[in-house]
Amino acid sequence: MKARVTVFPRPEVLDPQGKAVREALLRLGHAEVADLRAGKCFDLELATEDHELARRELAEMCERLLANPLVERYEIQLG
Amino acid sequence: MKARVTVFPRPEVLDPQGKAVREALLRLGHAEVADLRAGKCFDLELATEDHELARRELAEMCERLLANPLVERYEIQLG
Repeated sequence: MKARVTVFPRPEVLDPQGKAVREALLRLGHAEVADLRAGKCFDLELATEDHELARRELAEMCERLLANPLVERYEIQLG
Repeated sequence: MKARVTVFPRPEVLDPQGKAVREALLRLGHAEVADLRAGKCFDLELATEDHELARRELAEMCERLLANPLVERYEIQLG
């Protein structure tokens, strides 16, 4: 089963990387970029077809390694 | 309008970051992770409601700054 995990800084947390990218885009003339947050993502191939198990395992991976729940939120998509 | 850009190394390109994350997950006991690719993503707020314009602008941002088309592929989602 394929899965995608997306990790972003929480809305209340500063995002200096996103700020820098937005400023670079503005300098390139993309004035329509009102806001930008930068995150990371992971595309996984899981050796299971059990959606409930996959979701549980992915949440554990996020809590332990892929994200820092104190300052980041994560999304799990199964596909 | 909200948009999400996702950038991953092309399938034929090595992904040492993804390999390191997968190996760390295996060490944590997540033996079901058969493959993992690591990428970056950007959530944008655009000051336009014109989907066609937004898609064109985002493609240009990807080609010029957000991705390296030689070794990375990108996806644009409008939401």
